[in-house]
Amino acid sequence: MTQTLLLLPGDGIGPEVIEQAVRVAEKVAPDLALEEGLIGGISYDQLGTPLSDETLEKAKASSAVLLGAVGGPKWSDVARDKRPEAGLLNIRKGLDTYANLRPALCFSALADASALKRELVEGLDIMIVRELVGGVYFGQPKGIETLPDGTRRGFDNAEYTTPEIHRITRVAFDIAKGRGNYDRKWGGVCSVEKSNVMDSGLLWKEEVQAIYDAELKDMGVPLHHMLADACAMQLVREPKGFDVILADNLFGDILSDEASMLTGSIGMLPSASLSDAGKPGLYEPVHGSAPDIAGQGKANPFAAILSLEMALRWSLGRIEAADEVTRAVSTALEKGARTGDLGGDFTTAQMGDAVLAEL
Amino acid sequence: MTQTLLLLPGDGIGPEVIEQAVRVAEKVAPDLALEEGLIGGISYDQLGTPLSDETLEKAKASSAVLLGAVGGPKWSDVARDKRPEAGLLNIRKGLDTYANLRPALCFSALADASALKRELVEGLDIMIVRELVGGVYFGQPKGIETLPDGTRRGFDNAEYTTPEIHRITRVAFDIAKGRGNYDRKWGGVCSVEKSNVMDSGLLWKEEVQAIYDAELKDMGVPLHHMLADACAMQLVREPKGFDVILADNLFGDILSDEASMLTGSIGMLPSASLSDAGKPGLYEPVHGSAPDIAGQGKANPFAAILSLEMALRWSLGRIEAADEVTRAVSTALEKGARTGDLGGDFTTAQMGDAVLAEL
Ligand SMILES: CC(C)[C@H](C(=O)O)[C@@H](O)C(=O)O
Ligand SMILES: CC(C)[C@H](C(=O)O)[C@@H](O)C(=O)O
Repeated sequence: MTQTLLLLPGDGIGPEVIEQAVRVAEKVAPDLALEEGLIGGISYDQLGTPLSDETLEKAKASSAVLLGAVGGPKWSDVARDKRPEAGLLNIRKGLDTYANLRPALCFSALADASALKRELVEGLDIMIVRELVGGVYFGQPKGIETLPDGTRRGFDNAEYTTPEIHRITRVAFDIAKGRGNYDRKWGGVCSVEKSNVMDSGLLWKEEVQAIYDAELKDMGVPLHHMLADACAMQLVREPKGFDVILADNLFGDILSDEASMLTGSIGMLPSASLSDAGKPGLYEPVHGSAPDIAGQGKANPFAAILSLEMALRWSLGRIEAADEVTRAVSTALEKGARTGDLGGDFTTAQMGDAVLAEL
Repeated sequence: MTQTLLLLPGDGIGPEVIEQAVRVAEKVAPDLALEEGLIGGISYDQLGTPLSDETLEKAKASSAVLLGAVGGPKWSDVARDKRPEAGLLNIRKGLDTYANLRPALCFSALADASALKRELVEGLDIMIVRELVGGVYFGQPKGIETLPDGTRRGFDNAEYTTPEIHRITRVAFDIAKGRGNYDRKWGGVCSVEKSNVMDSGLLWKEEVQAIYDAELKDMGVPLHHMLADACAMQLVREPKGFDVILADNLFGDILSDEASMLTGSIGMLPSASLSDAGKPGLYEPVHGSAPDIAGQGKANPFAAILSLEMALRWSLGRIEAADEVTRAVSTALEKGARTGDLGGDFTTAQMGDAVLAEL
């Protein structure tokens, strides 16, 4: 059966970086059927919704989805459920991509770009496994109500259930097993919550421990528990002590952004959002739509190209092609390919050329 | 009327560091009446509760409260509402200390201790203003329930109201006004939330803006809004761009811990938790009870001494005494006073001696 990759370039620099990823895809996986769809602000502008049923159906029918970026100041006055970001939340929920994998990798050619001292980040290689379709992002009830005295109350339900916690914990352990970095200080899986103040956090901690004791212990992967505030600290103090960080939707959002910035290479970082085996995964750069540089050919397409690489690896089963892309990106980097964010002056297309030259 | 300072040394290194702060208090404010009370694990052990009514009443009747630290592994199996941390949450709520001020200061003598490159943190001086008695910490309902199929659901209500947001916003603006760092990238007040996914966050953003437009605009203090994940990033990338960060209870917890670690001097950082004018404030080091080094005379008492300094300044109106303490700590540091956390071998008492010698 033909495999299909659905491209959702989105807004801002999204289309530019996806264009380069497409060149790479056409080279390493020429038989892959590429389709295209709308998401985000461009979808809102054309269809009045940031995610149409048509796009969601196309996504569900595809083997994998490669997304650029969504959002921009243009849509800041749009009602929140119609804003570009809502398209992102809806496609995550619609595809039930509950496992968001965000590597925070420090490419050694780029270690000097980090805010941290070189010795703290050189060789950094953390994987954040973030629960992506639950918690305070989607819990009900949520809303804003006006009280009798005219003041207002805003509320969100931060909630998790046993099955939600178990399934994401299994993913974290599978990944930690494949990495095998048990000798690090918090090697294996480090589960993060605020169990000292949140009941959903206490449930998180207890159920991670319960599924570990019942089912995962024999894998030999160590399990650590850490409070989210302590994790935010330790990510700065001793980032190389971490291996796989397992977090809920909200803490995962914040901690993965912090971790990605430590690497000094945020323009380089891909992400994968996975559902159960056999269902399409959603792949996207960690960076946003960067409206300030959109359309200028300055954006770094490596995060998009590495997102393609993750799609090849995790959804399309094309491990060799994925390895080839990784190698090509590394070599291009070693040979000096650098956009502005990395201190160079390559254009987006020249970065693509540099990778293609190594394939 | 005699002013009273209630000492709540608590657990772990709490008593050791408070002891040194007391020596300083006796020197710079000899007429201050010092009282003592129990909180945390020691209170649980003696009274079966981490915060007795007696301690809370004493606290309400005092001019200010100086707390050491609470908690430790000894109490990890205690039910959560009896754990040492519950004592802390209860005294905050009981005193209605809704404004938690957490400076993140990089002492230039210590800039090399930071994980960040020196140029990024030298001279760093951020103030985090965290809402301390609302949000997901205290919102109702919260709980863990067992569902018919035997699985469980944990939930917490993240909520804010207009008055809660307005009062903390006023504090942030007052503080920013006193600092006057408007030329920084996010100078003035930078309000942080996740308004793109949380309704309580959207209310936060709207109500900060509303009280600014209605009442605070004329102060001339700039207002910025930033998403919490972006803030976690920018704190690493460009910490000196911040001035006053205004955040809710949960984001304030995480971001202030991240920011404090950037300074490389977490053993040096004090905090103040304030209620309305005329009511007692609660002062405590940012660091925890450090059970691993408790009782060894190794703990750095400067955060406790600087917490006393904040009490003198904010609750006791003794600005000169406060200035004198600040100067003495700076000089002691310049002359080389360093505990282990700062790369030296001073004992806790020797650090106290070094400060007293300058008073
Ligand atoms: C755009 C926003 C809704 C989103 C999130 O909070 O999940 C983003 O920050 C991310 O991490 O992908
Ligand atoms: C001990 C804990 C309940 C507390 C909090 O989360 O507020 C602590 O982390 C703090 O920041 O003072």
